[in-house]
Amino acid sequence: MAILSALGTEVFIPIAAVIGIAFAVVQWALVARVKLTPASPASKNGYNDSLIEEEEGLNDHNVVVRCEEIQRAISEGATSFLFTEYQYVGVFMSIFAVVIFLFLGSVEGFSTKSQPCTYSKDKYCKPALFNALFSTASFLLGAITSLVSGFLGMKIATYANARTTLEARKGVGKAFITAFRSGAVMGFLLASSGLVVLYITINVFKLYYGDDWEGLFESITGYGLGGSSMALFGRVGGGIYTKAADVGADLVGKVERNIPEDDPRNPAVIADNVGDNVGDIAGMGSDLFGSYAESSCAALVVASISSFGINHDFTGMCYPLLVSSVGIIVCLITTLFATDFFEIKAVKEIEPALKKQLIISTALMTVGIAIISWLALPAKFTIFNFGAQKEVTNWGLFFCVAIGLWAGLIIGFVTEYYTSNAYSPVQDVADSCRTGAATNVIFGLALGYKSVIIPIFAIAVSIYVSFSIAAMYGIAVAALGMLSTIATGLAIDAYGPISDNAGGIAEMAGMSHRIRERTDALDAAGNTTAAIGKGFAIGSAALVSLALFGAFVSRAGVKVVDVLSPKVFIGLIVGAMLPYWFSAMTMKSVGSAALKMVEEVRRQFNTIPGLMEGTAKPDYATCVKISTDASIKEMIPPGALVMLTPLIVGTLFGVETLSGVLAGALVSGVQIAISASNTGGAWDNAKKYIEAGASEHARTLGPKGSDCHKAAVIGDTIGDPLKDTSGPSLNILIKLMAVESLVFAPFFATHGGLLFKYL
Amino acid sequence: MAILSALGTEVFIPIAAVIGIAFAVVQWALVARVKLTPASPASKNGYNDSLIEEEEGLNDHNVVVRCEEIQRAISEGATSFLFTEYQYVGVFMSIFAVVIFLFLGSVEGFSTKSQPCTYSKDKYCKPALFNALFSTASFLLGAITSLVSGFLGMKIATYANARTTLEARKGVGKAFITAFRSGAVMGFLLASSGLVVLYITINVFKLYYGDDWEGLFESITGYGLGGSSMALFGRVGGGIYTKAADVGADLVGKVERNIPEDDPRNPAVIADNVGDNVGDIAGMGSDLFGSYAESSCAALVVASISSFGINHDFTGMCYPLLVSSVGIIVCLITTLFATDFFEIKAVKEIEPALKKQLIISTALMTVGIAIISWLALPAKFTIFNFGAQKEVTNWGLFFCVAIGLWAGLIIGFVTEYYTSNAYSPVQDVADSCRTGAATNVIFGLALGYKSVIIPIFAIAVSIYVSFSIAAMYGIAVAALGMLSTIATGLAIDAYGPISDNAGGIAEMAGMSHRIRERTDALDAAGNTTAAIGKGFAIGSAALVSLALFGAFVSRAGVKVVDVLSPKVFIGLIVGAMLPYWFSAMTMKSVGSAALKMVEEVRRQFNTIPGLMEGTAKPDYATCVKISTDASIKEMIPPGALVMLTPLIVGTLFGVETLSGVLAGALVSGVQIAISASNTGGAWDNAKKYIEAGASEHARTLGPKGSDCHKAAVIGDTIGDPLKDTSGPSLNILIKLMAVESLVFAPFFATHGGLLFKYL
Repeated sequence: MAILSALGTEVFIPIAAVIGIAFAVVQWALVARVKLTPASPASKNGYNDSLIEEEEGLNDHNVVVRCEEIQRAISEGATSFLFTEYQYVGVFMSIFAVVIFLFLGSVEGFSTKSQPCTYSKDKYCKPALFNALFSTASFLLGAITSLVSGFLGMKIATYANARTTLEARKGVGKAFITAFRSGAVMGFLLASSGLVVLYITINVFKLYYGDDWEGLFESITGYGLGGSSMALFGRVGGGIYTKAADVGADLVGKVERNIPEDDPRNPAVIADNVGDNVGDIAGMGSDLFGSYAESSCAALVVASISSFGINHDFTGMCYPLLVSSVGIIVCLITTLFATDFFEIKAVKEIEPALKKQLIISTALMTVGIAIISWLALPAKFTIFNFGAQKEVTNWGLFFCVAIGLWAGLIIGFVTEYYTSNAYSPVQDVADSCRTGAATNVIFGLALGYKSVIIPIFAIAVSIYVSFSIAAMYGIAVAALGMLSTIATGLAIDAYGPISDNAGGIAEMAGMSHRIRERTDALDAAGNTTAAIGKGFAIGSAALVSLALFGAFVSRAGVKVVDVLSPKVFIGLIVGAMLPYWFSAMTMKSVGSAALKMVEEVRRQFNTIPGLMEGTAKPDYATCVKISTDASIKEMIPPGALVMLTPLIVGTLFGVETLSGVLAGALVSGVQIAISASNTGGAWDNAKKYIEAGASEHARTLGPKGSDCHKAAVIGDTIGDPLKDTSGPSLNILIKLMAVESLVFAPFFATHGGLLFKYL
Repeated sequence: MAILSALGTEVFIPIAAVIGIAFAVVQWALVARVKLTPASPASKNGYNDSLIEEEEGLNDHNVVVRCEEIQRAISEGATSFLFTEYQYVGVFMSIFAVVIFLFLGSVEGFSTKSQPCTYSKDKYCKPALFNALFSTASFLLGAITSLVSGFLGMKIATYANARTTLEARKGVGKAFITAFRSGAVMGFLLASSGLVVLYITINVFKLYYGDDWEGLFESITGYGLGGSSMALFGRVGGGIYTKAADVGADLVGKVERNIPEDDPRNPAVIADNVGDNVGDIAGMGSDLFGSYAESSCAALVVASISSFGINHDFTGMCYPLLVSSVGIIVCLITTLFATDFFEIKAVKEIEPALKKQLIISTALMTVGIAIISWLALPAKFTIFNFGAQKEVTNWGLFFCVAIGLWAGLIIGFVTEYYTSNAYSPVQDVADSCRTGAATNVIFGLALGYKSVIIPIFAIAVSIYVSFSIAAMYGIAVAALGMLSTIATGLAIDAYGPISDNAGGIAEMAGMSHRIRERTDALDAAGNTTAAIGKGFAIGSAALVSLALFGAFVSRAGVKVVDVLSPKVFIGLIVGAMLPYWFSAMTMKSVGSAALKMVEEVRRQFNTIPGLMEGTAKPDYATCVKISTDASIKEMIPPGALVMLTPLIVGTLFGVETLSGVLAGALVSGVQIAISASNTGGAWDNAKKYIEAGASEHARTLGPKGSDCHKAAVIGDTIGDPLKDTSGPSLNILIKLMAVESLVFAPFFATHGGLLFKYL
């Protein structure tokens, strides 16, 4: 039926993944050409570029040596934290794997006999026991892939940060390319490995499942659950780590002691820089990998009970993976626009260059989707729609993917508008600092609330259109469309923390202010791209959760989720409360950990003689330990809340109430997530706006240390846990609860709702 | 069937209302015994009590004269603002009345012929044109009653504030009683007049409608819409007014100039005190009146299509009004416990006394409900449940009302726990001020989020239980149960701003610090009771909206509101966004108005010579004008958002999407409303905790003017718009959209959904 044969599909997907990985390796090699060993006078910093601005002492051996030392300290801190984190998470994952096996195995009493299929009752499917086994295996695979993605991202970021600092000596363009290439390494590695692992898993599972595609893709959803569970702990643990250190460092260093950010005299400075790598890099990598894995799984599980699955049309079935494969190629071309086709020469070109990445990738991807939809899909096919079958054309499905993609772009632009200091919203927030921190906070909160409006309309329109065309499958592929340019999204997202670290290293290594100004400019653009990345993550999370929710409802055999039923309504209102509960936990955790950090930093300033004068070294390790201990301890309760809620609600109250909880958490969580990350981003950039003093208006508010600036720093500090801990964790909350419900759906459908049954 | 005859009902309701009004008048007379004219030496302050603590100069003529002057200034400012506000709102209400008439009249093409009834298709009901007319009339009546309630409340409060100050000279107990009695005047007037107007309206409308109770009670719902529309503008306009003045006064006076709160040198001080009366008193009065009117209307309209309505059982039909009548009697007895049975002698007895009010009224009311359920209800009756009839017993219905009542108490206690500085949450927030304003804000936000958990569970349980027993009627009477002690609730709620004003007057009149300490203690308890009052308002709003939502769905002929339908889901997610949009508008309004106020106050301090020294008088009038202009201008957009959304969604997208919007706004808005008002209350009391220095811990954080205290003041200022503008307005948002949808349901059911019809 489709133009692309099953064999073509079998070849195309792994090739695209391999190209992506190869591209990542090439980028890494290019970054590695920047040498961290002091250059011999002949070769000048490793290769033959001249430093554009040869300032006195900038190219001396000591600076390079110090950069290398600091980088090693950051890298070791991050590695050691992640290993500690992974040990705890490993224990949790093992227990949860057992829970999955026991719950799913118990559906048919651990039977090893074939059972009638759920949807095609006349056929026989594989026994429940093996479904439980394979689900558990794919859960573990997803968790491990997510873990490896995050870890590799951290490794690359800590490899690139000092190199970006050194390149900043040659101008902002060189530094930008180094940071961006490193981001691209992470983006392409993650997108490609996510794809290839999923692809291999499907093929291996198929050896056992054979023609039982229903069971096959149902057990594959464990992959999404694993990815997302890991992401939750990564985001929450990393988020608490980074923000405890950041808030603690800022409160004493910037506010009390009036020393610059990242000053090496500040005892929390290493912890702060480690935090960027474990939170914003490793956490975010796991998060987006989770989104990607879940949207693929949601699309696959819905497709498996549609005509693709029933007719065993492998190419059509693999359409979600094909879209991702095309995405890798498109992002590869897009990256070249940033690194090779154009060159950045001035600070003001950075943000437009990053914005161009979004536009180019979206435009190219639209063409790519059109081509793959034409090649891989039959002209007409049917999709499962809560019991009925719905006819869809290939162009209709193209439209679903495209609308998700473009909704993502709109969300990105709106986020940029509300968080970049080039536009009036952030400038208004900066202006409100004239009357102190209180008005700054009021304006910032109002900005975050307002920034929710357009993204929600964009999501609502995508949902309506894609559902009308292709029911829940349409929504799943719309989510996939939004995530299809994930490699580029991750590249510009990871670029931010790398630049942030680069600035920190410049400060700590005692490099000139001009270097710091360049890295600051990279970093300000990075704040905006981080907010854009979070916008994508949240937007796609909303679509993914809805698709997973739809799949869950189908699998659990629920026909309607009626708000007028009290079982559903109480789920809805309690579900809408969960993001608040979760945020309360994570914010309080950051606050308490920051308090401890502040006390330690103050203690060191008060008791270590010569610290303020720079003659004595602070005790960095104690601060690293405080962040580590706090984040490990504090990530458990919010993690447990998210992981246990679907289990408890499903088991005690049943699938109807659970449906309500999922819908409530989704519609409420998405709002808090968007507003929290935009508020935080806006405060951060309002502060940078005052610091940079690039306009007449900004100069009337500054300089650093003025009352306005102090008010802006308070806003920035409040925004830290909002934008880097609770906000981004919320999109994991809504996705994870949905995918967990889907994985456990067979159990809930059979044994759920004990309380209502026996009361 | 029921023990109480129709005649008994006809007599009992107006008698209870008249008793309530008489009690209010008696309380007023008692307050009036405190004379504002300087006392002759013989009679000592108007009557024969001695001042317990005769401090030098405290009883001199000048102080009393100054109190009287300040009181007049506040009263005049408030009256003039409310008149301005009412002019604008009057125009809006008139236009909206025309809209109601046109929309509802157009349902049957302005036909004057009888039409088949909506629910009993075999019978004939009154023509649509007259329904439109009567709905419009009851809308206007509701609006006027709400307006009068708010206005009278303001008048009483501005009558009582200076009297409370003067009584504070005799001790905290006397001051407490004066403030509390004045609150009671407002509470009883409002509860009684709401009841009596509704009762008379029903009886007058019945002259036309006769046996068409379906049409009768449908048109009565306009009363709820009118009450709530007025409340919206009152809350938003008053909220912006009070907080612009408060924030502006604090930012310059307390933070920059380091002068005490309410210092007469501060140019915004009169505006600030006026604000308490127009926002916290008039706005809140209108708000709770709206809740009361809506829950009565929701219960009545559901009852009218149940066996009460069908069998024309007048006593059963009037059960909601009978519950309110019993409530007035119960609250009357409860009030005596505060004013007559016990006497407050020390500051620490204030909060327990107010708490006792809640417990006593709830306990007595439980008995009251049991008696009236036994007297007024038949042992068994049937209730309309989305097309089906459901059998309910009188004890079942008693249980519904009681669960609402007790859920209200739980919400009240939880609110108290999270906002009173007697417990650890607020103390933790105060403690976090050690590390500055940023951690204070982070802890405060986390506290607000956390405080949502138990109230939501309480609401969810009430919903589930009362729906299981008596469907939507159960929920409506549960809401009514929560509001049945409204007279007491309002009394302790209004007591807060009166005490706040009393403190302001003491400061401005130059009375001794000991007087100020007493009024401060009254005020701190008032912050908590205000938060409790808001908790009740929100909890009842959630139940009322759900009941109205149910009535709307029934009336619009919707059988299921299926989350899985994209029409409903997009409504749900957009509805959940509306509270954010609304909050963004109101918070930004407060911020902008406060900025203007700050500039004006700064200008006066800088340009009026001798102002800081107290030799020159500030220009109070300009500040009053800034607040007035800002609030009138800024209340329009959020008001329009709330009022137009149901009209636009219903007309363009139809009843299904509108159902989604209502459910989404409800489940999302209730969370923000609770967290915003508790966060604000906690910050305010954390500041007061540090100021009062009543414990060892508190003294380590203080005194006034310390760094901790400054951080606490920033939190307090941020909390102002959260707790007094956006938070409490949100419960009006959710109720108002629901009642408006219900009133317009006949139009939407016939002509709604144009966009989906023609696309």
